[in-house]
Amino acid sequence: MSDRPKIRLYVDHALQAGQTVELSRDQANYLFNVMRLGQGAEVALFNGRDGEWRALVAEAGKRGGSLVCDAQTAPLMPPPDLWLLFAPIKKARTDFIVEKATEMGAARIIPVQTDFTNAERIRQDRLQAHAIEATEQCGGTFVPEVSDLQRLDRVLADWPEDRGLIFADEGLAGADTSLAAAPRRQSWAILIGPEGGFSEAERARLRGLPFVTPIALGPRILRADTAAVAALTLFQASLGDWV
Amino acid sequence: MSDRPKIRLYVDHALQAGQTVELSRDQANYLFNVMRLGQGAEVALFNGRDGEWRALVAEAGKRGGSLVCDAQTAPLMPPPDLWLLFAPIKKARTDFIVEKATEMGAARIIPVQTDFTNAERIRQDRLQAHAIEATEQCGGTFVPEVSDLQRLDRVLADWPEDRGLIFADEGLAGADTSLAAAPRRQSWAILIGPEGGFSEAERARLRGLPFVTPIALGPRILRADTAAVAALTLFQASLGDWV
Repeated sequence: MSDRPKIRLYVDHALQAGQTVELSRDQANYLFNVMRLGQGAEVALFNGRDGEWRALVAEAGKRGGSLVCDAQTAPLMPPPDLWLLFAPIKKARTDFIVEKATEMGAARIIPVQTDFTNAERIRQDRLQAHAIEATEQCGGTFVPEVSDLQRLDRVLADWPEDRGLIFADEGLAGADTSLAAAPRRQSWAILIGPEGGFSEAERARLRGLPFVTPIALGPRILRADTAAVAALTLFQASLGDWV
Repeated sequence: MSDRPKIRLYVDHALQAGQTVELSRDQANYLFNVMRLGQGAEVALFNGRDGEWRALVAEAGKRGGSLVCDAQTAPLMPPPDLWLLFAPIKKARTDFIVEKATEMGAARIIPVQTDFTNAERIRQDRLQAHAIEATEQCGGTFVPEVSDLQRLDRVLADWPEDRGLIFADEGLAGADTSLAAAPRRQSWAILIGPEGGFSEAERARLRGLPFVTPIALGPRILRADTAAVAALTLFQASLGDWV
């Protein structure tokens, strides 16, 4: 990866050889004031669709500027077809879960409202911006989509029947900690409980669903953000793109 | 665990049936002002040595108070003999790594200074307090010891030869992501690199050491705190106390 520029920038623009990309005021400020790039400097661009492109600074202004795409430096590398469902709690932990899920290679991030979740609303735009920032940082070329907050019971009622759901809950002492015996599927999701866990009604419903694979995450109670990384690790290392 | 009290408190005091435990001003404030417990209320106590004990409030004052131990509610459950070595970077991420390592069951946490680490010093007492708080929260009975900052090269020079070292680094594309083939040992450590990675000299040295098992953590670059949870997950799920 030594010929990939170090500064990576997400742009909402088609990328191809010779393409000019106009910069927003914020992007120009970041590249030219914060990072002090000048004309001819290299930046890696990605848009979540066309892989990563090396681009050269064509015009560097205080309030704007433009880059010209040179060559593709990495193809689009989408993660496995994996959703992460989690119950948002405190703001800082929610931000962390979106950051971690992006680094760990979730393709879609779905905040869900559970019986024990207090959050009435989330700032979807802010969480999506976190996912973009985490993609810039982790070297990825795919930006996971962050959904609006949805009720868990409705998500389960509309569940696509070919998608497996890995259900991690602290009430699962004795469940398997390995996904080695999980059924073979192309599409998966992981559901992480809120701090305080799921209600008994939710647990009973989840255990009765045919597409659910329960998983235990060890003898200690993990915070939701820790549990998200742990469950994503188990998935990627046995069914995902780490193998 | 339904008969274990929900409020858990670490005390630096021997615990046995009938034992009276005097509370510090901070502890009394937490129990009686913040949590509003009164005489006779139940608290779970642990000291990292004697398991978890149910204790009853004997005296509740504004600036102090005391508890009396009733019965042991959980034995001491030490985690595997696993150290986590990490290079401290920003304060918030360092705090997170200590919290996560505690939840994930590291027995000892060792901040190390590497070629690319800027931290000259850490607040060991503050990090140890984070480990205690994380133990209170995760239901554990064992508090990992947080060491003072040490130079990685000296730690490696004094390495105990029977302890394996799992070395996770972003430069290891192509290394195994599984510990299935790791040699059988009782004592282990995990080393997580700083953001910016290890120097070439450090990498070369680590790869040449007979006790080192390199491990890859997937195709994306993980932040240090994400990498710590991911590596601890792989360990616990294949060699540790999750199996």
